[in-house]
Amino acid sequence: MAGLPEPAASKPLMTDRRQLANAIRALSMDAVQRANSGHPGMPMGMADIAEVLYNGHLRHNPNHPEWWDRDRFVVSNGHGSMLLYSVLHLSGYALSIEDLKNFRQLHSPTAGHPEAGEAPGVETTTGPLGQGLANAVGMALAEKLLAARYNRDGHTVVDHRTFVFAGDGCLMEGISHEACSLAGTWGLGKLVVFYDDNNISIDGEVGNWFTDNTPERFDAYGWQVIEDVDGHDPDAIDAAINEALANTDQPTLICCKTTIGFGSPNKAGTAATHGAPLGDDEIAATRKALGWNYPPFEIPEEIREAWDARERGQAMEREWAERWSAYQNAHPEAATEFERRMNGQLPADFDQILADAIAKAQADDSKVATRKASGMSIEALAPHLPEMIGGSADLTGSNNTDWSGSVDIMDDLATGNYLSYGVREFGMTAIANGLDLHGGFIPYTGTFLVFSDYARNAVRMSALIPTGAIHVYTHDSIGLGEDGPTHQPVEHTASLRLIPNLEVWRPADKAETMVAWGRAIKRRKSPTALILTRQGLPHQPKDATQLANVERGGYILKEAAGGKPEAVIMASGSEVGLAVQAAAQLEADGTPTRVVSMPNPDRFQAQDEAYRTSVLPADVHARVAVEAGVSMYWWRLVGDRGRVIGMDEFGASAPAEELFAEYGFTVENVVNAVREVVGG
Amino acid sequence: MAGLPEPAASKPLMTDRRQLANAIRALSMDAVQRANSGHPGMPMGMADIAEVLYNGHLRHNPNHPEWWDRDRFVVSNGHGSMLLYSVLHLSGYALSIEDLKNFRQLHSPTAGHPEAGEAPGVETTTGPLGQGLANAVGMALAEKLLAARYNRDGHTVVDHRTFVFAGDGCLMEGISHEACSLAGTWGLGKLVVFYDDNNISIDGEVGNWFTDNTPERFDAYGWQVIEDVDGHDPDAIDAAINEALANTDQPTLICCKTTIGFGSPNKAGTAATHGAPLGDDEIAATRKALGWNYPPFEIPEEIREAWDARERGQAMEREWAERWSAYQNAHPEAATEFERRMNGQLPADFDQILADAIAKAQADDSKVATRKASGMSIEALAPHLPEMIGGSADLTGSNNTDWSGSVDIMDDLATGNYLSYGVREFGMTAIANGLDLHGGFIPYTGTFLVFSDYARNAVRMSALIPTGAIHVYTHDSIGLGEDGPTHQPVEHTASLRLIPNLEVWRPADKAETMVAWGRAIKRRKSPTALILTRQGLPHQPKDATQLANVERGGYILKEAAGGKPEAVIMASGSEVGLAVQAAAQLEADGTPTRVVSMPNPDRFQAQDEAYRTSVLPADVHARVAVEAGVSMYWWRLVGDRGRVIGMDEFGASAPAEELFAEYGFTVENVVNAVREVVGG
Repeated sequence: MAGLPEPAASKPLMTDRRQLANAIRALSMDAVQRANSGHPGMPMGMADIAEVLYNGHLRHNPNHPEWWDRDRFVVSNGHGSMLLYSVLHLSGYALSIEDLKNFRQLHSPTAGHPEAGEAPGVETTTGPLGQGLANAVGMALAEKLLAARYNRDGHTVVDHRTFVFAGDGCLMEGISHEACSLAGTWGLGKLVVFYDDNNISIDGEVGNWFTDNTPERFDAYGWQVIEDVDGHDPDAIDAAINEALANTDQPTLICCKTTIGFGSPNKAGTAATHGAPLGDDEIAATRKALGWNYPPFEIPEEIREAWDARERGQAMEREWAERWSAYQNAHPEAATEFERRMNGQLPADFDQILADAIAKAQADDSKVATRKASGMSIEALAPHLPEMIGGSADLTGSNNTDWSGSVDIMDDLATGNYLSYGVREFGMTAIANGLDLHGGFIPYTGTFLVFSDYARNAVRMSALIPTGAIHVYTHDSIGLGEDGPTHQPVEHTASLRLIPNLEVWRPADKAETMVAWGRAIKRRKSPTALILTRQGLPHQPKDATQLANVERGGYILKEAAGGKPEAVIMASGSEVGLAVQAAAQLEADGTPTRVVSMPNPDRFQAQDEAYRTSVLPADVHARVAVEAGVSMYWWRLVGDRGRVIGMDEFGASAPAEELFAEYGFTVENVVNAVREVVGG
Repeated sequence: MAGLPEPAASKPLMTDRRQLANAIRALSMDAVQRANSGHPGMPMGMADIAEVLYNGHLRHNPNHPEWWDRDRFVVSNGHGSMLLYSVLHLSGYALSIEDLKNFRQLHSPTAGHPEAGEAPGVETTTGPLGQGLANAVGMALAEKLLAARYNRDGHTVVDHRTFVFAGDGCLMEGISHEACSLAGTWGLGKLVVFYDDNNISIDGEVGNWFTDNTPERFDAYGWQVIEDVDGHDPDAIDAAINEALANTDQPTLICCKTTIGFGSPNKAGTAATHGAPLGDDEIAATRKALGWNYPPFEIPEEIREAWDARERGQAMEREWAERWSAYQNAHPEAATEFERRMNGQLPADFDQILADAIAKAQADDSKVATRKASGMSIEALAPHLPEMIGGSADLTGSNNTDWSGSVDIMDDLATGNYLSYGVREFGMTAIANGLDLHGGFIPYTGTFLVFSDYARNAVRMSALIPTGAIHVYTHDSIGLGEDGPTHQPVEHTASLRLIPNLEVWRPADKAETMVAWGRAIKRRKSPTALILTRQGLPHQPKDATQLANVERGGYILKEAAGGKPEAVIMASGSEVGLAVQAAAQLEADGTPTRVVSMPNPDRFQAQDEAYRTSVLPADVHARVAVEAGVSMYWWRLVGDRGRVIGMDEFGASAPAEELFAEYGFTVENVVNAVREVVGG
């Protein structure tokens, strides 16, 4: 922030700071009471910290919450949503007092936990503990990378901080270890985390279950740690923030001693304030104790004025806009690229690049593993997309997530586009969500499919927030062979398909993989999981129509003799080749059999009925699905008279070919299943 | 171990220790080479540590791997399975050289990663990093609790240690934070973890992604940390183990500097040794460098003799058996209870206790939330089962996981039966698996259903190992209301059903809940997930036959008029009441409608065909399933002509009743769906 004034300096405070903080407390306890549901304890406990941060330090523009260079503020302890809604309202965002009155009501922007996209100024969706913190690590990393890449001598256009509120719960969660360890390694000097050290979690005083020396722990991660800050003393908080910001080499943890439910005469300092309304009597007593003599949802004018950040926010952005304008003049190409990235636009020629890459992938008839096909897809697209930022949870060579232009950010920050996440699947995924939320990046992650379990809730959050994160999952099913059942995902593909808004692709060859990658990249505001094999898969010839239909999620790969199928075999990924072999034998034996490749059955089912019935004719009931995963998923598609050849038990440790035979993924078995349903 | 000699003292070593360790190295590199698959690096790196541990300290009996008071040894970095198989073979377990030659082959006990139950002496199934460490925390906790409860003055019958090998990967994983924080809080003084600090993970030297000060981190957890131990110096290792064991108040982390792939002249110290065979040439060079002049799978007699632990193991157990015998005489009741618990037997009168509890639950016609019904179930059964050890990830009051006899282990160790896990779902679940693996406990966990995601791979491991852990998941679906979509599990019930060997119950009332709990407890060697509501559910009358059929997973709750259904509505949990209401309206309008309660559809489908068709008649195609979760799961049961009223999108923040109406869970909607399929 070289040379830039802190916002506080520009506007002296008009009234007592405690009263400013009490506005948060009153709004929070009143909104929770009105909703008869919610969490007053955290907002009342962290109100003073929020007040100092918002009125003294935060660089933001309530009139333009999307301003690229705003500071990010993340409430990782998202149950304290009323704190966030209060400060957004008070500082002038388009979040009205009516919205606060409708806290936790249907169709209100003030959801029980903060939801990105619902209320202006909410940077990410939080509530599942620890993930907001990890999102913030991703945001701070995004800032650091963009600053290194785009700032020029005399032209600073990327320069903002990321502030986080986190509670005991966030710090108990394992993801805090993963994300904060990386933040230390990456030296995220503009990340400032306020630890709400109130000694209380839902089950009570934490002494029986949380005895970490947290400052020592964060010191071990390479953070600057500011201990023993009185979280109710504005001067102490202010000094701590200044100290935090002065250190630009390390992230900072500010350990704030606070009282949960501060102000409540009978409940403060106890778990009783955490997740339930205080009750009318206690609220009245709290008003008295705080000296807050205003009715619910009424904020006196001088307090409103003191909070109002619109004018100074506008001034801040204006000052930045002048710098941006100068930058555009001095560095037009970089400015254009940066602008395109921040707007989430793909290059104008991307569709052509993708079409060429798909055609090329289809023209190559070699047998390759789809994880390698994924690597080839990245190699084809990434040179055109500097916003792509890849990474793997310590399985780079196995996940094929790197490409010839990969540069580890630890080796060169300005050109860095690859993250060595270490063995941290959950942290990786939530950090990728944060990179996406910040803007300017298309993040992709990598691990073995079975370890998507470790990251599962962050994958869900990709879909719920939503972000456009792309999750590369290799070593699907028993095809990984000898590593055995601990590493063989048999339920994971189906399980990922159950997450709303997540697209799951299980491609069968290079071209399907490239199509899936293309769609994942174009689907900028929703996430994708790519399910990829360890083992080589045969090339599948496709004409132009077939190739165009891959994107529909399911298509006719092999037509039955005479175009009149008696049976349909549908399959995905590694089982498509088997389906083709089985169909050939059935055809030879006189059963006209169609093969449908189904890389994304959910997407297929979202097609119009005409297309669906053109692929799966309503009068063909002899349907067999083949997928080396749990069978339950496929019944809707095969119907009452169909069969599913699936994998409804854990696998075993052995060479892959032996396992496929052992568990019934053989031509003979598929042929027999088809014969049974044709005869049945 | 007051007064007991360390095993090393009883038998001087016969040969050079390095050569003893080299036996592990040779077996490991040769077996991996023969399988053409596997991980030689860790076994070669940790061989000296394993040698000192096994030959100098480990109290075990290869002839009787199930000896209750054996030390537990867990290889958390389970890819180093060949180290474990080597030491088990060498020390005399029933694991032959042929078994080692069949490493990673179908039907061999020597799976790619160690699998409990496959090879003798494998204490838990490992490979998914960090979980073995957490299992070990559970085992060490089990020992501490059983010792406190059953040991008497002059009678020590529970006194063993838990040793763990862990790598960088284990320590990067978030679960290591959760489990090790708790181990520190719980003061697990007999837990000793060897950290294989070899500076290498799969992506290479860890400097770009793992810069934690690990000793400082573990000091922050309250562990004893022994730093900078040369992991290739037997004396240094031996001294560190002695120091670790001398401290019985704190768990100990021994940080061992090792060289991955130690002995390989060209690959040692690099990631190249981690997960691939060394190759014939490098193996030959390694033999030479190590001075190991024996062919593959040949162990010279003097080395075999030095490793053979059968005689001293037998002597150790014999000595313990004498103590146990004296204890049985002095404390017969405690001995009987302890023996019953360690044998995994339920009390002789358990079936009667359960039957009474089910009858009582059915007789109570009050409306309660099934989470409360679960609490009532625990209250009914736990007084008879001192082996039940509950806990919650900081949601005790919400999960109803405590009961009137709950004692936090931190408050009283000898009577403690409740674990305040803090906000650590993954650690909790893996620790519960460890408690079960140790023996003597029926562990149950608690959290919100949505946060089963955080623990997902440990739930999977419950099913794969398997253990009898019981997972209590409350606050199902949109019924939790105002907390919003971050907390509303819509895909989780279906997703858990996909895990092989996990039973998932979604009960509709008190009696169904009690039946589910009873089955979960009786299913001692396989895990169960209980899906429970936040909101109250109506009592459902059932006659004796219906009550008996609950256990079958699905049963006729309301017969259609005249016993001849034109339609069947099936539902689970919170939607059963809705199904009953809709059926009443349909009956009133002249459509005979059967209601099937389906608390566990997977179990229903495992019933014989006669039962299944008695519940879902083959000729009734007008079937509607109602469940406030993703619909895909139900299609097999409703069939081609059926309908599913499900929840295929994320929910919203609002009072529960409004959400059920918003998303179509209304009598009107169910009635209309039935009318459509009856007409269709």
